[in-house]
Amino acid sequence: MEVIKELPKGFKANGYKDGYGFSIIISEKKAIASGVFTRNKVKAYPVIYSKDLLEKKKEFKAIIANSGNAICLIKDGFETVNRIIEKASELFNLNKEDILIASTGVIGRKLDFGMLEERMIKVKELLENGNSIVNAAKGIMTTDKFPKYVAVKIGDVRVCGIAKGAGMINPNMATMLCFILTDIKIDKEDLDKLLKDIVDKTFNNISVDGDTSTNDTVFILANGESGVDYKNCKEDFYKALLFVCRELAKMIVKDGEGATKFLELTIKNAKSREDAKKAGKAIINSLLVKTALFGGDPNWGRIIAALGYSGAEFKDVDLILSNGNEEIYLMRNGIGEDSGDILKKAENIMKGKEIKIIVDLKVGDVDETFYGCDLSYEYVKINAEYTT
Amino acid sequence: MEVIKELPKGFKANGYKDGYGFSIIISEKKAIASGVFTRNKVKAYPVIYSKDLLEKKKEFKAIIANSGNAICLIKDGFETVNRIIEKASELFNLNKEDILIASTGVIGRKLDFGMLEERMIKVKELLENGNSIVNAAKGIMTTDKFPKYVAVKIGDVRVCGIAKGAGMINPNMATMLCFILTDIKIDKEDLDKLLKDIVDKTFNNISVDGDTSTNDTVFILANGESGVDYKNCKEDFYKALLFVCRELAKMIVKDGEGATKFLELTIKNAKSREDAKKAGKAIINSLLVKTALFGGDPNWGRIIAALGYSGAEFKDVDLILSNGNEEIYLMRNGIGEDSGDILKKAENIMKGKEIKIIVDLKVGDVDETFYGCDLSYEYVKINAEYTT
Repeated sequence: MEVIKELPKGFKANGYKDGYGFSIIISEKKAIASGVFTRNKVKAYPVIYSKDLLEKKKEFKAIIANSGNAICLIKDGFETVNRIIEKASELFNLNKEDILIASTGVIGRKLDFGMLEERMIKVKELLENGNSIVNAAKGIMTTDKFPKYVAVKIGDVRVCGIAKGAGMINPNMATMLCFILTDIKIDKEDLDKLLKDIVDKTFNNISVDGDTSTNDTVFILANGESGVDYKNCKEDFYKALLFVCRELAKMIVKDGEGATKFLELTIKNAKSREDAKKAGKAIINSLLVKTALFGGDPNWGRIIAALGYSGAEFKDVDLILSNGNEEIYLMRNGIGEDSGDILKKAENIMKGKEIKIIVDLKVGDVDETFYGCDLSYEYVKINAEYTT
Repeated sequence: MEVIKELPKGFKANGYKDGYGFSIIISEKKAIASGVFTRNKVKAYPVIYSKDLLEKKKEFKAIIANSGNAICLIKDGFETVNRIIEKASELFNLNKEDILIASTGVIGRKLDFGMLEERMIKVKELLENGNSIVNAAKGIMTTDKFPKYVAVKIGDVRVCGIAKGAGMINPNMATMLCFILTDIKIDKEDLDKLLKDIVDKTFNNISVDGDTSTNDTVFILANGESGVDYKNCKEDFYKALLFVCRELAKMIVKDGEGATKFLELTIKNAKSREDAKKAGKAIINSLLVKTALFGGDPNWGRIIAALGYSGAEFKDVDLILSNGNEEIYLMRNGIGEDSGDILKKAENIMKGKEIKIIVDLKVGDVDETFYGCDLSYEYVKINAEYTT
């Protein structure tokens, strides 16, 4: 597998951001599409619209996305979505029913259509001059500090993904937008299954603040232009797709609003996948764990307290702190290590930017990895001042 | 009902805090006792010890509590508890089996027994000179900024409570310590039922940070010294106990680590009590709601997003913001109000110190009130720097 710069075969993409943002991804030929959406009961109109469309047909030619307004909990929501789809169809010469749409931004505010239209026209001009994954990733940013994209090649197959997300990130479906393009030849059933599985292993295991948004959307388009059939490279394609999604998931956490530290948490030997998720989520979402991380404080009791209220089963837990090189047992067989020497070593590790924690539950054989970040003054600042 | 300054008849209490803290409450005659404990699977040793004792016998003479060390996840935890009980029995002339114990503080650190013993001796001296509810409330403080106590009289019955708690506060059992004393005559069965019901309506509906601690404990002692039988004043006693618990619950939230604003959230017309709790907890625990509160930002979409992922049922929701005088509809029948006039009014209300939010789910007839606070820089500071 090789990290590349270019889009998969037969795709075009560009975007533009200035207050409002707009991005478009186009496949020259029709592509098999799949999607995963927020589990929030309150769903933004673009989510309802695209979900419905994906249930009705399986081939699409484009994904469009706007940032700055979520098109959620407003009057005339469907009319707004239709107006954007219509405009995109006209500008980019597409059939309306071949376009999927996603949105991100403030909830409950009327969209300034004129402002969005300006961005759409700008993107049309940019696209006429070529492709830019970076611009496409920029067009969907809100509080993101950097554009998120990754592209790989494995054999003759290319997989590329862009994502946005820095707040409202909770491991119950990736609270973010992510669009993945590939030129592999694959049928709808396999694509649906693969996407669901990989989203659950990557975006569903990250957390910035535990809030699940109304707009979460992952789309994948597979246009078959590489000529390579999925049936002949199942393992390789799985690896490539997992890599793309995991890298994007990590980027989202690293760009977590106000995040100064990155946590990789491995839950080991859980009784079930569900139990591993319960434990992992409780720990990466705990405010006390997150602030201890920010403070570089080896107050590991908070990790075990979070495990305790997670609902997961465990017995004689081991708790291990690591910086990648050195491993320190903070708790062994359910009893804390409180020697000054160990706490000092732990403090040193906690001062680092990237911290690994392993919690061995010792009641089964399921392992699962989660990605989280700390909670800083900056998070509070960003979110106290965001709307206006 | 009258707010008073003195303890219920037949009780003594005092406490002392200097790094480590210690408090004691003694009933001269044996009192009927009841307790409610943390639901965290990781329970501190004093919780396991007292829970077990309360299952075996129903009358007690004393509650003791230490602050600064949680006696949790350490080697020799039961030995530590026994040593404290033994010391208290000797100093205060009590039978060991008549003493209930609770602890609060850092998890996983060995207790410095000599330091605690000094505090216990100090409290013995203080108690010889008289009672002090305030000192008893101070002795159990950790990051609390003020001691929490309230006492009322209704007819000839007195009810008094002290509490501590400012962090690790989550509405799934009061994450805190609370000790209630009353001179009413009541049997064990009634007392158990009453305590459970009232804790669920008060301490279980508050939140500071969503973390449930390993040490949460509520004790009540009823010594019958007023001569008044519960059977003859059920309603009055209920009212008094509810008042004491609600006031203490509100104090805990107002003293929430770093809290600058107080939120009273009413969920109206929920389908069930469980649904009301789901909705209320999701909203008061949402980091995005809490930071919006801190920023005085009427970003109400975050409230509805939290409602959406809570799992509660709702339909055509109304969302009302109030300062106690003026009421503003931010959402009516599921559609947001985005006129500049309304947002401006909302912004003014959000600037206040005490904010009321009403969410009408319109699918049933259960109402429930919750108390929360904002998330400020100060919360991050306190919790990034707490352990050492």
